[in-house]
Amino acid sequence: MEKALTEQQQRLIRFYHSHPFIRCMNFEVLPQEDGTVRFALPIDEMHTNLYGIAHGGVLMAMADTVMGAACLELNKKVVTMNLSMDFMHAVPMTQRIVATAQVLHDGRHTMTCECEILSEEGKLFAKAHAMFYVLGKFIEDDTE
Amino acid sequence: MEKALTEQQQRLIRFYHSHPFIRCMNFEVLPQEDGTVRFALPIDEMHTNLYGIAHGGVLMAMADTVMGAACLELNKKVVTMNLSMDFMHAVPMTQRIVATAQVLHDGRHTMTCECEILSEEGKLFAKAHAMFYVLGKFIEDDTE
Amino acid sequence: MEKALTEQQQRLIRFYHSHPFIRCMNFEVLPQEDGTVRFALPIDEMHTNLYGIAHGGVLMAMADTVMGAACLELNKKVVTMNLSMDFMHAVPMTQRIVATAQVLHDGRHTMTCECEILSEEGKLFAKAHAMFYVLGKFIEDDTE
Amino acid sequence: MEKALTEQQQRLIRFYHSHPFIRCMNFEVLPQEDGTVRFALPIDEMHTNLYGIAHGGVLMAMADTVMGAACLELNKKVVTMNLSMDFMHAVPMTQRIVATAQVLHDGRHTMTCECEILSEEGKLFAKAHAMFYVLGKFIEDDTE
Repeated sequence: MEKALTEQQQRLIRFYHSHPFIRCMNFEVLPQEDGTVRFALPIDEMHTNLYGIAHGGVLMAMADTVMGAACLELNKKVVTMNLSMDFMHAVPMTQRIVATAQVLHDGRHTMTCECEILSEEGKLFAKAHAMFYVLGKFIEDDTE
Repeated sequence: MEKALTEQQQRLIRFYHSHPFIRCMNFEVLPQEDGTVRFALPIDEMHTNLYGIAHGGVLMAMADTVMGAACLELNKKVVTMNLSMDFMHAVPMTQRIVATAQVLHDGRHTMTCECEILSEEGKLFAKAHAMFYVLGKFIEDDTE
Repeated sequence: MEKALTEQQQRLIRFYHSHPFIRCMNFEVLPQEDGTVRFALPIDEMHTNLYGIAHGGVLMAMADTVMGAACLELNKKVVTMNLSMDFMHAVPMTQRIVATAQVLHDGRHTMTCECEILSEEGKLFAKAHAMFYVLGKFIEDDTE
Repeated sequence: MEKALTEQQQRLIRFYHSHPFIRCMNFEVLPQEDGTVRFALPIDEMHTNLYGIAHGGVLMAMADTVMGAACLELNKKVVTMNLSMDFMHAVPMTQRIVATAQVLHDGRHTMTCECEILSEEGKLFAKAHAMFYVLGKFIEDDTE
């Protein structure tokens, strides 16, 4: 990525850099050319169950994170009210996965997002959708 | 717990003891008097986001695990097809939570379970339900 | 049911009596001894698909209705934000089903409920859970 | 639509024409140029609650139907195992809505679909996703 990061992307990178659970899980923030961020994760042994595939909890945690980031990008500080994920294919160890999010509804009180967990070639491993409650603004002095 | 562990409980404890993601998350297997298991987790800093509360992914991972264990208890080896969680209350750091599961439908091809994430005093933090696909038996020589 | 209906039950019966979609579907309000209501429905040909079993939409409509009623019983006027249903068993024609609801979380802004679709003997056909947004009070002058 | 209907579209139209619940609900089959079908519905009084907006059950029934049709288009006869819908905007009386479906995963035993409920101008009222269990083929003699 040649392009300089936007201020918002830098803010998100800092935000997730000091986020204990995101650090624990090794999720990488992946800035996009359009100013948004995605998350990436190479599936390591620590993410797997005894069958050598990623635990569902890893994918749901990643989905929750990237959809929350999509809300932050719209300057909404949110909490998750509900998340639902469909699992289509097992994710084997060493597979690098990417999580993308889309805001379907940007309401005053609630937001609805969806998320895809993909290989870098675009294979769909899992898809989630979630509803968030809006607590306030991410950056309070934003509208001054 | 005075009562000796059942053979199944010992098997589940060994199973999760060598499970990379369960170890990474620090989920504890909690054998019950009725022969089943629950999972417990004291929320540590590593499980939290920047607001000092447990990340939703931690609760979903725990729900997925305890519902999978409830399937193993019926000798079904399963994969998660779908999981949906409603979040009622934030779980603060140091809070010890317990995850319980119930099998709602024990079908030949699919199983449906639900799970509650509770404080030890019974406060309901989150509730999940999930559908599992039955791959086969957990212990193959069980019916001999 | 020998006991006289409570004022609230009478109000709910009137409410649903003039509710176009509930009338169209033939859902019956079933007052309970504890002051709450359930809904009942004998599956008629109009509710079925070509395999002679109830269409999933009938069960989801019934679940949405009985959970909404559970919110009205707590004097909350709500709209559904999200509903998710697991289908365990097909409901054959002529089967009489009963829908029961439980409020899991009665928040100021949102409510979480769950619902079971049962035979009168207690067989579980389907289970739903839903999140509702609180618009205001059902009976405005209630707290005077 | 100038183009002649494909054999499959004609089959689906006949199928839904004699489907009791689809007739009861007045869902219209809407053949598409690409050989698939959508469903349309002008919201009538019978579909509404007392606030004059479509009952959630109507939208979920429509979603279940169009996703089932998307499975039939791939010659899979299915039953719904799980359906989850997020409601973004109320649908007012007289509004004509269109339901579209997409198959996300076409497995041997299970299928995953998603569905959008839209105005004809493309406003997103609700989005659903569902998992289906494959019973067999829709047209048995299809593969010789």
